[in-house]
Amino acid sequence: MKTTVIVFGDTTNKNSIQLEKEYIKRISPFSQIEYITLKEEKMGKTISEEQIKQKESDKFFEIFNKLNKNKNIFLVACHVQGKHFTSEQFAQKLKDTENQFAGITFIIGGSLGLSKNILEKAHLKLSFSSMTFPHDLFRTFLFEQIYRGFMINNNRKYHR
Amino acid sequence: MKTTVIVFGDTTNKNSIQLEKEYIKRISPFSQIEYITLKEEKMGKTISEEQIKQKESDKFFEIFNKLNKNKNIFLVACHVQGKHFTSEQFAQKLKDTENQFAGITFIIGGSLGLSKNILEKAHLKLSFSSMTFPHDLFRTFLFEQIYRGFMINNNRKYHR
Repeated sequence: MKTTVIVFGDTTNKNSIQLEKEYIKRISPFSQIEYITLKEEKMGKTISEEQIKQKESDKFFEIFNKLNKNKNIFLVACHVQGKHFTSEQFAQKLKDTENQFAGITFIIGGSLGLSKNILEKAHLKLSFSSMTFPHDLFRTFLFEQIYRGFMINNNRKYHR
Repeated sequence: MKTTVIVFGDTTNKNSIQLEKEYIKRISPFSQIEYITLKEEKMGKTISEEQIKQKESDKFFEIFNKLNKNKNIFLVACHVQGKHFTSEQFAQKLKDTENQFAGITFIIGGSLGLSKNILEKAHLKLSFSSMTFPHDLFRTFLFEQIYRGFMINNNRKYHR
Protein backbone atom coordinates (compact mmCIF):
# COMPACT_ATOMS: atom_id res chain seq x y z
CA MET A 1 0.00 0.00 0.00
CA LYS A 2 1.22 3.47 -0.85
CA THR A 3 0.87 6.14 1.83
CA THR A 4 0.58 9.78 0.76
CA VAL A 5 0.50 12.78 3.07
CA ILE A 6 -0.60 16.08 1.52
CA VAL A 7 -0.20 19.33 3.46
CA PHE A 8 -0.45 23.08 2.86
CA GLY A 9 2.60 25.20 3.55
CA ASP A 10 6.19 24.25 4.38
CA THR A 11 7.31 23.02 7.77
CA THR A 12 9.48 25.88 9.02
CA ASN A 13 10.85 24.70 12.36
CA LYS A 14 14.13 22.87 11.73
CA ASN A 15 13.68 20.46 14.65
CA SER A 16 10.20 19.55 13.41
CA ILE A 17 11.63 18.98 9.92
CA GLN A 18 14.18 16.56 11.40
CA LEU A 19 11.51 14.70 13.40
CA GLU A 20 9.33 14.37 10.29
CA LYS A 21 12.28 12.99 8.35
CA GLU A 22 13.03 10.45 11.07
CA TYR A 23 9.47 9.09 11.07
CA ILE A 24 9.21 9.06 7.28
CA LYS A 25 12.41 7.01 7.18
CA ARG A 26 11.00 4.60 9.77
CA ILE A 27 7.73 4.20 7.83
CA SER A 28 9.52 3.41 4.55
CA PRO A 29 10.18 -0.31 5.23
CA PHE A 30 6.41 -0.79 5.71
CA SER A 31 4.97 1.36 2.94
CA GLN A 32 5.97 3.47 -0.02
CA ILE A 33 5.54 6.98 1.37
CA GLU A 34 5.07 10.24 -0.47
CA TYR A 35 4.95 13.65 1.21
CA ILE A 36 3.46 16.46 -0.88
CA THR A 37 3.52 20.11 0.19
CA LEU A 38 1.09 22.46 -1.57
CA LYS A 39 1.45 26.22 -1.45
CA GLU A 40 -0.89 27.92 1.01
CA GLU A 41 -3.07 30.63 -0.48
CA LYS A 42 -2.23 34.11 0.82
CA MET A 43 -4.86 35.85 2.90
CA GLY A 44 -5.76 39.38 1.91
CA LYS A 45 -8.44 42.03 1.90
CA THR A 46 -9.75 41.12 -1.55
CA ILE A 47 -10.18 37.41 -0.87
CA SER A 48 -12.62 35.77 1.58
CA GLU A 49 -11.77 32.79 3.77
CA GLU A 50 -14.21 30.69 1.76
CA GLN A 51 -12.43 31.66 -1.47
CA ILE A 52 -9.05 30.68 0.02
CA LYS A 53 -10.41 27.30 1.12
CA GLN A 54 -11.93 26.79 -2.33
CA LYS A 55 -8.63 27.57 -4.06
CA GLU A 56 -6.74 25.21 -1.75
CA SER A 57 -9.40 22.56 -2.35
CA ASP A 58 -8.94 22.89 -6.13
CA LYS A 59 -5.17 22.47 -5.76
CA PHE A 60 -5.70 19.39 -3.60
CA PHE A 61 -8.10 17.71 -6.05
CA GLU A 62 -5.78 18.41 -8.97
CA ILE A 63 -3.19 16.19 -7.24
CA PHE A 64 -5.57 13.73 -5.60
CA ASN A 65 -7.60 12.98 -8.74
CA LYS A 66 -4.39 11.90 -10.47
CA LEU A 67 -3.43 9.64 -7.56
CA ASN A 68 -6.97 8.27 -7.41
CA LYS A 69 -7.60 7.77 -11.13
CA ASN A 70 -8.48 4.12 -10.48
CA LYS A 71 -10.76 5.12 -7.60
CA ASN A 72 -8.78 2.92 -5.23
CA ILE A 73 -7.38 5.41 -2.72
CA PHE A 74 -8.76 5.71 0.82
CA LEU A 75 -8.92 9.40 1.71
CA VAL A 76 -8.45 10.54 5.31
CA ALA A 77 -9.13 14.18 6.19
CA CYS A 78 -7.39 15.30 9.41
CA HIS A 79 -10.07 17.32 11.14
CA VAL A 80 -10.25 18.50 14.76
CA GLN A 81 -13.96 17.60 14.90
CA GLY A 82 -13.42 14.17 13.31
CA LYS A 83 -13.51 10.74 14.90
CA HIS A 84 -11.14 9.85 17.76
CA PHE A 85 -9.23 6.56 17.56
CA THR A 86 -6.90 4.79 19.92
CA SER A 87 -3.55 3.87 18.31
CA GLU A 88 -4.75 0.23 18.10
CA GLN A 89 -7.98 1.27 16.33
CA PHE A 90 -5.99 3.44 13.96
CA ALA A 91 -3.64 0.49 13.22
CA GLN A 92 -6.70 -1.68 12.48
CA LYS A 93 -7.98 1.00 10.09
CA LEU A 94 -4.61 0.97 8.28
CA LYS A 95 -4.81 -2.84 8.05
CA ASP A 96 -8.40 -2.78 6.70
CA THR A 97 -7.38 -0.14 4.15
CA GLU A 98 -4.38 -2.22 3.06
CA ASN A 99 -6.77 -5.12 2.38
CA GLN A 100 -9.26 -3.09 0.38
CA PHE A 101 -7.44 -0.19 -1.27
CA ALA A 102 -4.26 0.43 -3.27
CA GLY A 103 -3.28 3.40 -1.17
CA ILE A 104 -4.16 5.77 1.63
CA THR A 105 -3.95 9.57 1.40
CA PHE A 106 -4.00 11.90 4.41
CA ILE A 107 -4.82 15.54 3.85
CA ILE A 108 -3.99 18.20 6.46
CA GLY A 109 -5.60 21.59 5.80
CA GLY A 110 -4.06 25.04 5.81
CA SER A 111 -4.55 27.46 8.68
CA LEU A 112 -8.24 27.93 7.80
CA GLY A 113 -8.93 24.18 7.78
CA LEU A 114 -10.34 22.03 5.00
CA SER A 115 -13.06 22.91 2.50
CA LYS A 116 -16.51 21.33 2.83
CA ASN A 117 -15.85 19.57 -0.46
CA ILE A 118 -12.78 17.72 0.88
CA LEU A 119 -14.56 16.83 4.13
CA GLU A 120 -17.46 15.37 2.15
CA LYS A 121 -15.25 13.37 -0.21
CA ALA A 122 -13.10 11.87 2.57
CA HIS A 123 -13.81 8.25 3.59
CA LEU A 124 -12.78 9.15 7.13
CA LYS A 125 -12.54 12.38 9.13
CA LEU A 126 -9.87 11.69 11.74
CA SER A 127 -9.19 13.74 14.88
CA PHE A 128 -5.92 13.33 16.76
CA SER A 129 -6.93 15.64 19.58
CA SER A 130 -9.63 18.13 20.54
CA MET A 131 -6.78 20.58 20.96
CA THR A 132 -5.33 22.76 18.23
CA PHE A 133 -1.63 22.23 17.46
CA PRO A 134 0.75 24.11 15.17
CA HIS A 135 1.04 22.55 11.71
CA ASP A 136 4.66 21.56 12.21
CA LEU A 137 3.92 19.51 15.31
CA PHE A 138 0.71 18.10 13.90
CA ARG A 139 2.57 16.60 10.95
CA THR A 140 5.03 14.94 13.28
CA PHE A 141 2.08 13.41 15.21
CA LEU A 142 0.57 12.04 12.04
CA PHE A 143 3.82 10.49 10.79
CA GLU A 144 4.47 9.02 14.24
CA GLN A 145 1.00 7.43 14.40
CA ILE A 146 1.33 5.98 10.90
CA TYR A 147 4.68 4.48 11.96
CA ARG A 148 3.14 3.20 15.22
CA GLY A 149 0.23 1.68 13.29
CA PHE A 150 2.54 -0.28 10.99
CA MET A 151 4.60 -1.43 14.00
CA ILE A 152 1.43 -2.65 15.76
CA ASN A 153 0.22 -4.44 12.60
CA ASN A 154 3.59 -6.17 12.24
CA ASN A 155 3.69 -7.21 15.91
CA ARG A 156 6.82 -5.17 16.45
CA LYS A 157 7.67 -3.91 19.91
CA TYR A 158 7.62 -0.14 20.16
CA HIS A 159 8.06 1.66 23.43
CA ARG A 160 5.58 4.23 24.68
CA MET B 1 1.61 31.29 39.00
CA LYS B 2 4.42 28.77 38.93
CA THR B 3 4.17 25.97 36.38
CA THR B 4 5.92 22.68 37.12
CA VAL B 5 6.18 19.72 34.77
CA ILE B 6 7.35 16.43 36.30
CA VAL B 7 8.24 13.49 34.05
CA PHE B 8 9.88 10.07 34.32
CA GLY B 9 12.96 9.40 32.23
CA ASP B 10 15.09 11.69 30.07
CA THR B 11 14.06 12.93 26.65
CA THR B 12 16.51 11.16 24.36
CA ASN B 13 15.70 12.47 20.87
CA LYS B 14 17.81 15.58 20.27
CA ASN B 15 15.21 17.27 18.05
CA SER B 16 12.55 16.74 20.72
CA ILE B 17 14.92 18.19 23.32
CA GLN B 18 15.32 21.31 21.16
CA LEU B 19 11.56 21.65 20.66
CA GLU B 20 10.95 21.31 24.42
CA LYS B 21 13.54 24.01 25.06
CA GLU B 22 11.93 26.36 22.54
CA TYR B 23 8.49 26.07 24.15
CA ILE B 24 9.85 26.35 27.70
CA LYS B 25 11.60 29.57 26.67
CA ARG B 26 8.37 30.87 25.15
CA ILE B 27 6.36 30.03 28.30
CA SER B 28 8.83 31.82 30.59
CA PRO B 29 7.49 35.39 30.06
CA PHE B 30 4.06 34.17 31.24
CA SER B 31 4.97 31.90 34.13
CA GLN B 32 7.90 30.72 36.19
CA ILE B 33 8.48 27.24 34.77
CA GLU B 34 10.26 24.29 36.31
CA TYR B 35 10.91 21.00 34.50
CA ILE B 36 11.78 18.06 36.74
CA THR B 37 12.93 14.70 35.38
CA LEU B 38 12.72 11.73 37.74
CA LYS B 39 14.55 8.47 37.11
CA GLU B 40 12.37 5.72 35.69
CA GLU B 41 12.39 2.47 37.67
CA LYS B 42 14.00 -0.39 35.80
CA MET B 43 11.76 -3.28 34.83
CA GLY B 44 12.94 -6.76 35.76
CA LYS B 45 11.92 -10.28 36.65
CA THR B 46 11.92 -9.67 40.37
CA ILE B 47 9.70 -6.58 40.31
CA SER B 48 6.04 -6.39 39.29
CA GLU B 49 4.53 -3.57 37.23
CA GLU B 50 2.51 -2.52 40.27
CA GLN B 51 5.70 -2.31 42.36
CA ILE B 52 7.38 -0.15 39.70
CA LYS B 53 4.40 2.21 39.61
CA GLN B 54 4.40 2.35 43.42
CA LYS B 55 8.10 3.23 43.54
CA GLU B 56 7.65 5.93 40.89
CA SER B 57 4.64 7.24 42.79
CA ASP B 58 6.72 7.50 46.00
CA LYS B 59 9.42 9.45 44.13
CA PHE B 60 6.79 11.78 42.71
CA PHE B 61 5.17 12.52 46.07
CA GLU B 62 8.56 13.16 47.70
CA ILE B 63 8.96 16.09 45.27
CA PHE B 64 5.33 17.13 45.01
CA ASN B 65 4.67 17.24 48.77
CA LYS B 66 7.51 19.76 49.11
CA LEU B 67 6.11 21.91 46.29
CA ASN B 68 2.64 21.61 47.78
CA LYS B 69 3.47 22.17 51.43
CA ASN B 70 0.94 25.01 51.59
CA LYS B 71 -1.68 22.85 49.82
CA ASN B 72 -2.01 25.45 47.08
CA ILE B 73 -0.88 23.55 43.99
CA PHE B 74 -3.34 22.36 41.33
CA LEU B 75 -2.26 18.88 40.24
CA VAL B 76 -2.90 17.70 36.67
CA ALA B 77 -2.26 14.05 35.80
CA CYS B 78 -1.73 13.46 32.06
CA HIS B 79 -3.74 10.33 31.40
CA VAL B 80 -4.90 8.84 28.11
CA GLN B 81 -8.33 8.07 29.61
CA GLY B 82 -8.69 11.52 31.16
CA LYS B 83 -10.86 14.43 30.09
CA HIS B 84 -10.52 15.95 26.61
CA PHE B 85 -10.30 19.74 26.32
CA THR B 86 -10.17 22.10 23.39
CA SER B 87 -7.20 24.50 23.55
CA GLU B 88 -9.62 27.28 24.58
CA GLN B 89 -11.05 25.16 27.43
CA PHE B 90 -7.52 24.28 28.53
CA ALA B 91 -6.58 27.99 28.50
CA GLN B 92 -9.66 28.72 30.66
CA LYS B 93 -8.57 26.00 33.09
CA LEU B 94 -5.12 27.65 33.33
CA LYS B 95 -6.80 31.01 34.00
CA ASP B 96 -9.09 29.56 36.70
CA THR B 97 -6.10 27.86 38.33
CA GLU B 98 -4.12 31.11 38.26
CA ASN B 99 -6.99 32.78 40.15
CA GLN B 100 -7.30 30.09 42.81
CA PHE B 101 -3.91 28.41 43.26
CA ALA B 102 -0.26 29.43 43.68
CA GLY B 103 0.90 26.96 41.09
CA ILE B 104 0.05 24.17 38.68
CA THR B 105 1.94 20.88 38.43
CA PHE B 106 1.64 18.47 35.52
CA ILE B 107 2.76 14.87 36.00
CA ILE B 108 3.47 12.60 33.02
CA GLY B 109 3.91 8.93 33.97
CA GLY B 110 6.60 6.48 32.96
CA SER B 111 6.03 3.80 30.32
CA LEU B 112 3.61 1.91 32.62
CA GLY B 113 1.51 4.98 33.28
CA LEU B 114 0.60 6.59 36.60
CA SER B 115 -0.18 4.89 39.92
CA LYS B 116 -3.75 4.80 41.20
CA ASN B 117 -2.59 6.98 44.07
CA ILE B 118 -1.47 9.83 41.78
CA LEU B 119 -4.63 9.55 39.66
CA GLU B 120 -6.77 9.83 42.80
CA LYS B 121 -4.85 12.79 44.20
CA ALA B 122 -4.93 14.78 40.94
CA HIS B 123 -7.45 17.64 40.70
CA LEU B 124 -7.73 16.92 36.97
CA LYS B 125 -6.99 13.92 34.74
CA LEU B 126 -6.23 15.42 31.34
CA SER B 127 -6.11 13.56 28.03
CA PHE B 128 -4.44 15.12 25.00
CA SER B 129 -5.44 12.34 22.64
CA SER B 130 -6.98 8.87 22.67
CA MET B 131 -3.81 7.82 20.86
CA THR B 132 -0.57 6.75 22.51
CA PHE B 133 2.48 8.87 21.71
CA PRO B 134 6.14 8.44 22.61
CA HIS B 135 7.18 10.29 25.75
CA ASP B 136 9.45 12.67 23.91
CA LEU B 137 6.70 13.90 21.61
CA PHE B 138 4.10 13.94 24.36
CA ARG B 139 6.19 16.37 26.40
CA THR B 140 6.49 18.69 23.43
CA PHE B 141 2.66 18.62 23.05
CA LEU B 142 2.19 19.53 26.69
CA PHE B 143 4.66 22.43 26.62
CA GLU B 144 3.12 23.69 23.38
CA GLN B 145 -0.41 23.62 24.83
CA ILE B 146 0.70 25.41 28.00
CA TYR B 147 2.31 28.08 25.81
CA ARG B 148 -0.80 28.24 23.61
CA GLY B 149 -3.00 28.56 26.71
CA PHE B 150 -1.02 31.55 28.03
CA MET B 151 -1.10 33.15 24.56
CA ILE B 152 -4.92 32.74 24.41
CA ASN B 153 -5.32 34.14 27.94
CA ASN B 154 -3.19 37.16 27.04
CA ASN B 155 -5.09 37.79 23.79
CA ARG B 156 -1.93 37.23 21.80
CA LYS B 157 -2.14 36.13 18.21
CA TYR B 158 -0.69 32.68 17.63
CA HIS B 159 -0.95 30.93 14.31
CA ARG B 160 -2.36 27.44 13.93
